[in-house]
Amino acid sequence: MVKVAVLGATGYTALELIKILLRHPQADIVALTTRQDGAPPVHTIHPSLYGRLTCPVEDLTPAQVAQRAEFVFCCLPHVASMEAVPTLLAGGAKVCDLSADYRLTDPVVYEKWYGHKHSDPGRLADTVYGLPELWADRIPGQSLIANPGCYTSTSILALAPLLKGGFVSPAGIIIDAKSGVSGAGRTPKLGTLYVECNEGVSAYSVAGTHRHTPEIDQVLSDFTGQKVQVLFTPHLMPMERGIFATIYGQLTRPTTQADLLAHFRAFYAGKPFVRVVEHLPNTRDSAHTNFCDITCRVTGNTVIVLACLDNLIKGAAGVAVQNFNLMNGFDETTALLP
Amino acid sequence: MVKVAVLGATGYTALELIKILLRHPQADIVALTTRQDGAPPVHTIHPSLYGRLTCPVEDLTPAQVAQRAEFVFCCLPHVASMEAVPTLLAGGAKVCDLSADYRLTDPVVYEKWYGHKHSDPGRLADTVYGLPELWADRIPGQSLIANPGCYTSTSILALAPLLKGGFVSPAGIIIDAKSGVSGAGRTPKLGTLYVECNEGVSAYSVAGTHRHTPEIDQVLSDFTGQKVQVLFTPHLMPMERGIFATIYGQLTRPTTQADLLAHFRAFYAGKPFVRVVEHLPNTRDSAHTNFCDITCRVTGNTVIVLACLDNLIKGAAGVAVQNFNLMNGFDETTALLP
Amino acid sequence: MVKVAVLGATGYTALELIKILLRHPQADIVALTTRQDGAPPVHTIHPSLYGRLTCPVEDLTPAQVAQRAEFVFCCLPHVASMEAVPTLLAGGAKVCDLSADYRLTDPVVYEKWYGHKHSDPGRLADTVYGLPELWADRIPGQSLIANPGCYTSTSILALAPLLKGGFVSPAGIIIDAKSGVSGAGRTPKLGTLYVECNEGVSAYSVAGTHRHTPEIDQVLSDFTGQKVQVLFTPHLMPMERGIFATIYGQLTRPTTQADLLAHFRAFYAGKPFVRVVEHLPNTRDSAHTNFCDITCRVTGNTVIVLACLDNLIKGAAGVAVQNFNLMNGFDETTALLP
Amino acid sequence: MVKVAVLGATGYTALELIKILLRHPQADIVALTTRQDGAPPVHTIHPSLYGRLTCPVEDLTPAQVAQRAEFVFCCLPHVASMEAVPTLLAGGAKVCDLSADYRLTDPVVYEKWYGHKHSDPGRLADTVYGLPELWADRIPGQSLIANPGCYTSTSILALAPLLKGGFVSPAGIIIDAKSGVSGAGRTPKLGTLYVECNEGVSAYSVAGTHRHTPEIDQVLSDFTGQKVQVLFTPHLMPMERGIFATIYGQLTRPTTQADLLAHFRAFYAGKPFVRVVEHLPNTRDSAHTNFCDITCRVTGNTVIVLACLDNLIKGAAGVAVQNFNLMNGFDETTALLP
Repeated sequence: MVKVAVLGATGYTALELIKILLRHPQADIVALTTRQDGAPPVHTIHPSLYGRLTCPVEDLTPAQVAQRAEFVFCCLPHVASMEAVPTLLAGGAKVCDLSADYRLTDPVVYEKWYGHKHSDPGRLADTVYGLPELWADRIPGQSLIANPGCYTSTSILALAPLLKGGFVSPAGIIIDAKSGVSGAGRTPKLGTLYVECNEGVSAYSVAGTHRHTPEIDQVLSDFTGQKVQVLFTPHLMPMERGIFATIYGQLTRPTTQADLLAHFRAFYAGKPFVRVVEHLPNTRDSAHTNFCDITCRVTGNTVIVLACLDNLIKGAAGVAVQNFNLMNGFDETTALLP
Repeated sequence: MVKVAVLGATGYTALELIKILLRHPQADIVALTTRQDGAPPVHTIHPSLYGRLTCPVEDLTPAQVAQRAEFVFCCLPHVASMEAVPTLLAGGAKVCDLSADYRLTDPVVYEKWYGHKHSDPGRLADTVYGLPELWADRIPGQSLIANPGCYTSTSILALAPLLKGGFVSPAGIIIDAKSGVSGAGRTPKLGTLYVECNEGVSAYSVAGTHRHTPEIDQVLSDFTGQKVQVLFTPHLMPMERGIFATIYGQLTRPTTQADLLAHFRAFYAGKPFVRVVEHLPNTRDSAHTNFCDITCRVTGNTVIVLACLDNLIKGAAGVAVQNFNLMNGFDETTALLP
Repeated sequence: MVKVAVLGATGYTALELIKILLRHPQADIVALTTRQDGAPPVHTIHPSLYGRLTCPVEDLTPAQVAQRAEFVFCCLPHVASMEAVPTLLAGGAKVCDLSADYRLTDPVVYEKWYGHKHSDPGRLADTVYGLPELWADRIPGQSLIANPGCYTSTSILALAPLLKGGFVSPAGIIIDAKSGVSGAGRTPKLGTLYVECNEGVSAYSVAGTHRHTPEIDQVLSDFTGQKVQVLFTPHLMPMERGIFATIYGQLTRPTTQADLLAHFRAFYAGKPFVRVVEHLPNTRDSAHTNFCDITCRVTGNTVIVLACLDNLIKGAAGVAVQNFNLMNGFDETTALLP
Repeated sequence: MVKVAVLGATGYTALELIKILLRHPQADIVALTTRQDGAPPVHTIHPSLYGRLTCPVEDLTPAQVAQRAEFVFCCLPHVASMEAVPTLLAGGAKVCDLSADYRLTDPVVYEKWYGHKHSDPGRLADTVYGLPELWADRIPGQSLIANPGCYTSTSILALAPLLKGGFVSPAGIIIDAKSGVSGAGRTPKLGTLYVECNEGVSAYSVAGTHRHTPEIDQVLSDFTGQKVQVLFTPHLMPMERGIFATIYGQLTRPTTQADLLAHFRAFYAGKPFVRVVEHLPNTRDSAHTNFCDITCRVTGNTVIVLACLDNLIKGAAGVAVQNFNLMNGFDETTALLP
């Protein structure tokens, strides 16, 4: 039994994480934190958890958390996260950081995209990017894992096999991504009000200005050993959860859909959470699961890869528990399947 | 041509009001206000108005507004409204106040429900409640009209005919009302975030604690000459707009549905915005219109009245323009039909 | 390990049932049926099940099902169900029937409300109504259980404690219920199209004409030993899943909210799936769970009970697995908690 | 006053058309048709029209319609439309055909994409494609206009200026389009049920197999005098109405966003229904209007054009009334603005 804590327990990802951990036979939730005063019962913040756990939500320092917990899921926003992680690690806790603070390996790139000087730059180069389908072997020995972003996981899982296999040119890739509103967090903002989102489809961070762009480029470049630079355009959809990516790539040689699907299947053999499907996937079908559904179609020398997942689960809390399982030597699917 | 202003132009009601006024052949929008700095073009606040009007959104005092406009739609929140209205009137403007500040005739009742001492109590007793289907004759000569609330309009239009006709007992009336999220306004709050409302049905202000309760009681009592006290329970629905009221009343004598519908039809003869229908109404069908749809069913000695309207139109901006029309001697339906 | 079958596997309830059974350590899905030709993989009907189970969806007779399975969840529509159940039982299978065919104890009442003569009337009087919170002790020895309806479960769980305790009068109870669209099934109909439901709130089967009315009356009368007759009004909400019931009852004597909540808590002590809460419940919070959340408020001599559950889980598939667990001697919460 | 008929009056487009025509001072609705028996009042089919018009919905032949009406909006499905149009024209009526039957100029292409031999091929080459922003001068004298598709209007309005101006290469254009569910029509189908669409984003007709592809290619090629071939991928969104197109094109020479927006503005000068905006458009903002909102962004040598409109208005019924206005010599904006 591992004593676990969730830092920043008030958001949507934390809620999903707590629900998964309640199903986990090896996890014992010992601390939930927020910066609010008092130690209210968790159901005052997440009413769906009424009666599910007794752990209150407390205003604890990272040092206090490290004393109480062996493993910490850090759901703080970026910047706040890199201020807490060193203390957590120094206190002996293992950490899965769900913020963006440890995903980029280069502090200069981090500062450019996040507008803050990184306060813990020494750890960046060595922190493993926790996408188990690519780097399951690197994760077990780690004390700190950078949990991937939701858009990035979708995009990388859809592209890595084709780029690694040399089927698709690393240049000219277009990722047209669509997200549910929960990806924007639980802090009240005009743009995420019900009325503003209802019946609304729009793009944002157009022209490669979204912060997941450098993350996608970095991971795909690292994994495939070539410089990959994508054009990523996110859209907000009138729904709660789900990421759908429609990806357009140029084939390097004539190939059929069947060949590409076979390659996908071989690549993801033994990976329980990627489903290579023949039909056109739908965010509904991966919602509330840790699956990423992928298929592709070929027309002329363009391949269209279609992939989706639940941004809160496979895009955040689910993959975090995958990482937790791998870091602790548990079966990768524990609490995630069935 | 009447020069009109909208005070508090950033909300959902104001947006609907502006759209209706753009269709009005006798209205010229000369001022839109908000407390933000600068005088941004209105489309920066309401992108749907791009290219529709040139009037900026300015931080004007009530006195400045009264100098510029002959008629003011006051969309300020309560308290703010009663601080502006006396100045507007003193400046010679006619006012339709969409807040709750002039709806209750008794300042003691106002203070009890709104938690503020009324700063303009002398006007309360004489201000006409602007529900044209009940009091069209009182509205024309007025310089100040209290525009009704959305729940209240729905409830009153559904109940006034039956109470006035003596069909239903004034005691024991239950109003189970359902509202879309736009009724909660445009200020970012946790409870009106997309994710919090999606797939969510819940009650609020249960047990007669909603501020529309005294308004319903007062108007129905005044109109019918007997003490009416309803039990009103509002619910929040996962939709943008619409109020649906399911009302349970005790019949004072055996009556058929046909008799009651005939009574409703006679009562609302010549009233263009109440549709007495045979079918079960649906908020969809009155959405984006100034109609209130009403029907009823009888079972045993209970009558169930079902009524709906668009909370932003017939429940706010549309009835405000009805009042504007009546106050200015225009046809009641101008800009509202067809 | 119990070999289980799902008859009528194409609907929404069957899908939820299959998902729960995949998590059940003692259930082995050996048959899924539909009347369509061929034996397509289940993911062609429910894409979310891709890769989750290999059992195809077949056109099997009840006799064939009884040969293969020890336990059958019958998700057929009414009439079809009573034609299959006798054969299933004769073949030695235990049955949880999710249709309405075995819920009413009187064949005359059945025929009146369902418009069909009951073809298996001899079983009606003795079939146990599978609401474990009321009759957990009756369920274990049974070979046939009538699984309750979704509106009925919500209403009964909210009312049974207060009626049994004598707090509320059995006369004059009003149930204003709100349901998500999935309750209307998966057969394409105009009324359940996205566009018809979106932004739409409406009542249906008004004035006590909904088929769940006699079921609520029968169970509450049986359980409390007095004649209970409710006025039940269902509404359709623009959401996928969830039932919310707002129930108005007359108190038989002065009582406080605290007393009533204490009574609820005592009544449901040891019942893992009813959560008596202080806050106002929301369908979101019980969605995707087997919980029914209940609270109440008192005003004057009226009590307002507010209850909600997920119509597909606690209102159908979840309670069916509760019954499966009790009928087979498993822990009641298996596959349902955590 | 023009006597108008709507053929196929039961769908969503017909409903919007009727609502617009009710506001039109020069249109008198004299016939509404459907193939159902009887002549029910229109509100039995469209409850929102209760009390709005007395014209029943009748089962009339095209010849009967032509006798009664001077102008016919043909909202029949393809194939049915080309069977009716010749009779309507022979009977002396002018026709705006909202189906796809007269949009493609080549009967061979029509047969390839629609799977039917065209029964009126002689008219194809000369029928004007009714996109007034491109061909307002061709429309006035016509007796038959092919009303454009919703995806096609969005795509063409977004691309025509840049292609005509030589800014964008006619090769390699990617159109990633997102549509609300109303575009799929009102006939009950599994795929358009509320529950199937809710929380669902998915692509369909992937790899250039959607029937709007040849229409986009044809119109853009005709208009710009060069062969244009786009890769068009439609997606279904969980919303009622709206089309959003994210279009990726290769610039032929270095250009700035400001230059392109200036070109857009010049191109659409005097066109009241295209709004070239600086901000990122949102389907919400063009919903329930006849506007198409367009902007663009430049990154490297890629231009991203973002455009949206209401598929039922500017994408169908609204542009049909624009065509009606132009064909009859009325102001283009009549009944459409303000």
